Amino acid sequence: MASSISTKLFLGAPDGSARLGSLQSPQMLPSPGLKLPARRSQSRRLEIQAAGSTYGTYFRVTTFGESHGGGVGCVIDGCPPRLPLSEADMQVDLDRRRPGQSRITTPRKETDTCKIASGVADGLTTGSPIKVEVPNTDQRGHDYSEMSLAYRPSHADATYDFKYGVRSIQGGGRSSARETIGRVAAGAVAKKILKQYAGTEILAYVSQVHSVVLPENLVDHESLTLDQIESNIVRCPNPEYAEKMIAAIDAVRVKGDSVGGVVTCIARNVPRGLGSPVFDKLEAELAKAALSLPATKGFEFGSGFAGTFMTGSVHNDVFYMDEHGRIRTKTNRSGGIQGGISNGEIINMRIAFKPTSTISRKQNTVSRDKNDTELIARGRHDPCVVPRAVPMVEAMVALVLVDQLMAQYAQCMLFPINPALQEPLEQRKSEQAQIPL
Amino acid sequence: MASSISTKLFLGAPDGSARLGSLQSPQMLPSPGLKLPARRSQSRRLEIQAAGSTYGTYFRVTTFGESHGGGVGCVIDGCPPRLPLSEADMQVDLDRRRPGQSRITTPRKETDTCKIASGVADGLTTGSPIKVEVPNTDQRGHDYSEMSLAYRPSHADATYDFKYGVRSIQGGGRSSARETIGRVAAGAVAKKILKQYAGTEILAYVSQVHSVVLPENLVDHESLTLDQIESNIVRCPNPEYAEKMIAAIDAVRVKGDSVGGVVTCIARNVPRGLGSPVFDKLEAELAKAALSLPATKGFEFGSGFAGTFMTGSVHNDVFYMDEHGRIRTKTNRSGGIQGGISNGEIINMRIAFKPTSTISRKQNTVSRDKNDTELIARGRHDPCVVPRAVPMVEAMVALVLVDQLMAQYAQCMLFPINPALQEPLEQRKSEQAQIPL
Amino acid sequence: MASSISTKLFLGAPDGSARLGSLQSPQMLPSPGLKLPARRSQSRRLEIQAAGSTYGTYFRVTTFGESHGGGVGCVIDGCPPRLPLSEADMQVDLDRRRPGQSRITTPRKETDTCKIASGVADGLTTGSPIKVEVPNTDQRGHDYSEMSLAYRPSHADATYDFKYGVRSIQGGGRSSARETIGRVAAGAVAKKILKQYAGTEILAYVSQVHSVVLPENLVDHESLTLDQIESNIVRCPNPEYAEKMIAAIDAVRVKGDSVGGVVTCIARNVPRGLGSPVFDKLEAELAKAALSLPATKGFEFGSGFAGTFMTGSVHNDVFYMDEHGRIRTKTNRSGGIQGGISNGEIINMRIAFKPTSTISRKQNTVSRDKNDTELIARGRHDPCVVPRAVPMVEAMVALVLVDQLMAQYAQCMLFPINPALQEPLEQRKSEQAQIPL
Amino acid sequence: MASSISTKLFLGAPDGSARLGSLQSPQMLPSPGLKLPARRSQSRRLEIQAAGSTYGTYFRVTTFGESHGGGVGCVIDGCPPRLPLSEADMQVDLDRRRPGQSRITTPRKETDTCKIASGVADGLTTGSPIKVEVPNTDQRGHDYSEMSLAYRPSHADATYDFKYGVRSIQGGGRSSARETIGRVAAGAVAKKILKQYAGTEILAYVSQVHSVVLPENLVDHESLTLDQIESNIVRCPNPEYAEKMIAAIDAVRVKGDSVGGVVTCIARNVPRGLGSPVFDKLEAELAKAALSLPATKGFEFGSGFAGTFMTGSVHNDVFYMDEHGRIRTKTNRSGGIQGGISNGEIINMRIAFKPTSTISRKQNTVSRDKNDTELIARGRHDPCVVPRAVPMVEAMVALVLVDQLMAQYAQCMLFPINPALQEPLEQRKSEQAQIPL
Repeated sequence: MASSISTKLFLGAPDGSARLGSLQSPQMLPSPGLKLPARRSQSRRLEIQAAGSTYGTYFRVTTFGESHGGGVGCVIDGCPPRLPLSEADMQVDLDRRRPGQSRITTPRKETDTCKIASGVADGLTTGSPIKVEVPNTDQRGHDYSEMSLAYRPSHADATYDFKYGVRSIQGGGRSSARETIGRVAAGAVAKKILKQYAGTEILAYVSQVHSVVLPENLVDHESLTLDQIESNIVRCPNPEYAEKMIAAIDAVRVKGDSVGGVVTCIARNVPRGLGSPVFDKLEAELAKAALSLPATKGFEFGSGFAGTFMTGSVHNDVFYMDEHGRIRTKTNRSGGIQGGISNGEIINMRIAFKPTSTISRKQNTVSRDKNDTELIARGRHDPCVVPRAVPMVEAMVALVLVDQLMAQYAQCMLFPINPALQEPLEQRKSEQAQIPL
Repeated sequence: MASSISTKLFLGAPDGSARLGSLQSPQMLPSPGLKLPARRSQSRRLEIQAAGSTYGTYFRVTTFGESHGGGVGCVIDGCPPRLPLSEADMQVDLDRRRPGQSRITTPRKETDTCKIASGVADGLTTGSPIKVEVPNTDQRGHDYSEMSLAYRPSHADATYDFKYGVRSIQGGGRSSARETIGRVAAGAVAKKILKQYAGTEILAYVSQVHSVVLPENLVDHESLTLDQIESNIVRCPNPEYAEKMIAAIDAVRVKGDSVGGVVTCIARNVPRGLGSPVFDKLEAELAKAALSLPATKGFEFGSGFAGTFMTGSVHNDVFYMDEHGRIRTKTNRSGGIQGGISNGEIINMRIAFKPTSTISRKQNTVSRDKNDTELIARGRHDPCVVPRAVPMVEAMVALVLVDQLMAQYAQCMLFPINPALQEPLEQRKSEQAQIPL
Repeated sequence: MASSISTKLFLGAPDGSARLGSLQSPQMLPSPGLKLPARRSQSRRLEIQAAGSTYGTYFRVTTFGESHGGGVGCVIDGCPPRLPLSEADMQVDLDRRRPGQSRITTPRKETDTCKIASGVADGLTTGSPIKVEVPNTDQRGHDYSEMSLAYRPSHADATYDFKYGVRSIQGGGRSSARETIGRVAAGAVAKKILKQYAGTEILAYVSQVHSVVLPENLVDHESLTLDQIESNIVRCPNPEYAEKMIAAIDAVRVKGDSVGGVVTCIARNVPRGLGSPVFDKLEAELAKAALSLPATKGFEFGSGFAGTFMTGSVHNDVFYMDEHGRIRTKTNRSGGIQGGISNGEIINMRIAFKPTSTISRKQNTVSRDKNDTELIARGRHDPCVVPRAVPMVEAMVALVLVDQLMAQYAQCMLFPINPALQEPLEQRKSEQAQIPL
Repeated sequence: MASSISTKLFLGAPDGSARLGSLQSPQMLPSPGLKLPARRSQSRRLEIQAAGSTYGTYFRVTTFGESHGGGVGCVIDGCPPRLPLSEADMQVDLDRRRPGQSRITTPRKETDTCKIASGVADGLTTGSPIKVEVPNTDQRGHDYSEMSLAYRPSHADATYDFKYGVRSIQGGGRSSARETIGRVAAGAVAKKILKQYAGTEILAYVSQVHSVVLPENLVDHESLTLDQIESNIVRCPNPEYAEKMIAAIDAVRVKGDSVGGVVTCIARNVPRGLGSPVFDKLEAELAKAALSLPATKGFEFGSGFAGTFMTGSVHNDVFYMDEHGRIRTKTNRSGGIQGGISNGEIINMRIAFKPTSTISRKQNTVSRDKNDTELIARGRHDPCVVPRAVPMVEAMVALVLVDQLMAQYAQCMLFPINPALQEPLEQRKSEQAQIPL
């Protein structure tokens, strides 16, 4: 009979569960709190090994791989040809993202060395897809064996099961922070295009860790440099607050706990006119890009949530003519975006990251077999994600801006510009010809 | 000679500007602060009359029209066939959105009566595109004549010019709140599908106006009803705070000023499994949808920015088995979404709206001719946008959820579900069969 | 009980059919061959009134409307700003498409006068969506009343019912040729951009009607002009064969029958480099665009099906350097496209159109109630669609090329070109500066 | 000065060409007809190593890799979870596609052994992306060294240079037939879903080689089997004509020449209702998919170009009720598609393939340095592509149908069907429950 056959094949019937072997039989159910030894062979049978997706319309990035497969990376489709590019361009940001870089990140060891597998010849992009690969070198799958039986609180284990109806992976699979390697590599290419084309610079830094909040007036967005940000392991450009943040992380780290924080990101020298008026407003694209990063809980730009406490007469950004004859705003509560379109001022935004879900303390939860259980995660984890989230945020912002730049170029630069109202997209390139590319 | 011809056509040359007529000649420049009479014939020549775009992959909405054309509306592509639908289904939400509904909204008078122009026959959707039209009835274009010469602070006037290189419209065109009529109409269809299919309910309300902040514990998201929200003109379900909020709006209204605020939105009975693991996480889609609304400055869900102040051991949502044998979480700091996928708990989010940019006070600005000027807006405006933003937020959330529902249905429901891990998407439909459709 | 309620609402149950009224009851079934009088009020209840969709990624066209609603048209999203545009630019092609233009087209009378409703100001495109509307003036719905009960052979009546499960429209709705008005209007804009930008010209003509086949050597694609094509009512540039074709159409027209034919289309001065290497090859996009037109059965380009009879040594196009130092091919069996990318030679293609399905002869069929019946269509129809298909084909080819031009511009022109291998996209513009735009 | 710096970087200036090294200097220009030895190190420097892209909206395939890199493959995004899948499912079709399978294909030796790298666990798809890899084992790059200097006639060498402005790859890169491995692997998954879900079968065969044309009446599409097609090396189900076709290929093979041909493809048991009414008609999608395959020149379905010679009264497909109470057509000139939507009859189509461009004969051409030259290709090649194109065509048709199936499922099956007009998509599944999956 057809239906029973099909049922068996799709696990929908009692017989279907039998196919999964003895795991679901009563004698195999984990006792609450029981710490099982690593059963490598079995856990392999249960793995879900992937999940990949695509960002962008013009400059299109597909990431692939997961924390426990052979490696991770990305394919970049639509990159302009003839851009000078090498692994070194990407490695800088990959090194800022990699685990084990300091005592306040996960001790997991990975070199995260990238290789350009296609799309670059003779040091120049060819216009065809760029494939970047990073092998996984530290694969201690047994660290996660217990988790394969218990839903880790505030992780994706349970929702993957709810969605796909298949027993899920140890280690988080595609929801792992390791997936972001592909994003950071692609973001480095996007950053290079933006800098090359228009002198655009994207810089993120940590502005809050737990209750340590960096006062806004301590950072000058006009003069902020990468060196200032990279001068300490927490990536806060103010040394005094950096110390406080590091101390806050150390405090929870020794207790096996974790804390949240905020990353601030700015984009300087963004060409005017990027974004579009209705559903695809520039701030909407940035919000989506930011909240596609793991562990994010919120996004604000310009005056943000604080702006809701103002009156319009205070909040509005007054226009004026600057000394170069450019239309500028005196304040920047608009955050560089008005009506969904960039206005040439600095774009600024803040992204909230929750405390890392993986902690070393005992937690109550339920197993995949729907029994109450306890869990002590033994996987290595970041006590606070924000120091490593800094290059991820920069990457996502760069991917949004380069996609919008290409959109603007295709539509509005096809014919000669109208200099009475527009300025060349690449106007300020000359100002920084001296910047090494 | 070719180049000069082409140059003239595209306004890129001195001659090009001449084609625009006398507007740019010195004698036509507006004196600072000069209040010009309505020059209807001329302002028409300067109008940009549109900007439309599309949201969604499966349930796809294109809005059209602007504040000063013949009307606005939307085309809904991909709506399931055989859904009972009439204008009344949409009019409810359009009435919640329309101007002039109370003293704390703009006095602009519009009935916003919608008409289904295609896609419904005999009271049922046909599966082909649904076109909804709402005529503009109150078109006082002269209210905006002065603005056509001056960049209104924190509006889209300047950025439209920067982007397109064409003199822009009075009234804001596609960036007008009037464009959201199409979204609200489409959102009403999406809400009906969600309720019909899975008993999903989407409710938004005002949780902050200026410095009046509704304490979270005063609203029970499990039992919140539309009637509670609609019981007062500011759409705050707590009567006491509603009064305070109304007073706060009245206080700035009489001064010609404006205030910002926050809209909270929940989605109840959302099927598990909606969303996807990487770039298109459910929270990322919601953030984009929310920040595509005019005047928004921030988005957070679950614990949001406040969650950054917690430790992981406090923040994590503990799993347990409820009395119906369903896997639940004891707390909901995840906001109903884990790893980008809905987990069946209530989805909650907060969206920040800035104070309305249009105010009746004199403001310094520059004209499109790059001269300093003053501006006193005489257009009618909302002293606070959040009461009318409530149905807009609900609509955008509904558009996201129905699109994700269809995505989940196409991918993961094609074959029989695995009841050991999944539950039917429409599980709870029966619970509310009594709800009139 | 929930399920029965939902069942009734979605027509899935016996009761559901009852909701449709008396139509399905036995006494209402049409007798075979019975010619029912126009029952306007009832047929209205049965109408499906729409179906709309979108073509293009960069230059994006959505058509709306159907043969029996208030009108038809399109929304063009992504059009470059500052392009001179007026209704006259579109009306030329709409007049070539409209019914009633000669004795060999349907006698249905429509002026098909278009109106630009938004997106153009002061004679220039604004960059925001262009909405073009054409009202329906000749709506004799009663002509189709009988068809609402019988599936017209080789029409879309049956498949719409199969797909959507709702009783379908008289007149064909969105599958009507009337839907193509929006395509022709948008195509006229695309043609103007292509001509303006790169001197590209797109010309289609009738090369076969029934058994009258125009020998290829009688048309010189290098010198072919629009005037030659428009010199007769069948749109064949050779007067002698035009006469034969007209006679062939007249022969079936008087018998109430119809014939098929072939439209040949060329694109001259297409910039090199359009298209992409894998799934989105230029020929693949052209094939899709062509076969999205009603009544098409086949597409070939370059040597086409005839090329399958050749050997490689004969078929290959030999490269040579021309007198201007450009790399050219001596023959053009590649049809201007190699490896999915335009090579600068003339792009040529042939599209097969079946004989019109609507004929005035009695045909056997089945009714929507699944009874055998006979049908005599009394709607007016084209005895041969190809003369009116000519501007439709040109429009679809233009939509493909402008979308690909913008794609190429966004990706490969962002940085200065490499003149050793590339040439400017707009290179030949100067050659035809004298062409009135 | 900025511009000169940027110019150097992007090869746009005289200096830029110097960066490419001595290749462009006069003494390095190849003499006409000169046969250079393989200069491996240099040719490597000149390689363009990729080009990848994506097909599908719901079931989305991205292919990667090229003929001379480490390998090829695909990522399948959106595959339904819980489908039984193993490498063996794909290997069958990969073996039908691989080179060296018989004397009438290229002698290049590749085993084309595939490996599922992610997306399948415990023999079932997980719902997350499936990555399939096939290593390249036969890489004789030196076969192509000469070609890197001369544009091979009717290949993509020249157009890649025109498009990207970078010196291109030996071996064709992404335009190589090797890229189709990823398509065939993904197509095998699509075929399995279609068969599993609805009993749909897709079968292609060779119906013409050079002047050997298989008469249509010699193949019965109702009873055609895979075994009949695979019974000979040319994949023509009629043994007599298969012999003639093989002889025709042998005849050109020994002369170093090539011939073209036609592949016919049918899809049986396609659910009714697939496709959509306007731009995305089912036939339009099939045409695009078919013409995205290398070497294709034309596509027709149903009556095709031959149908243009008929009258409507002969061409129309008469509806009738069959013995099972289903609405059927007596003839099938519509090719199973009416109004862009499948009607349940067999979908049939014919695809024209040109004679292979690579031949072993001497050909005149120009070099990349724009000098006249001669070329004798020494790469191994297929004397006729159609025997190996058979599984490629099946794969592309399967990708179209599964994407449309998921689209139809998401839109029109969300609510209970209307059995008066619709039938379940999976209706005929039971008929073949006995088919091993």
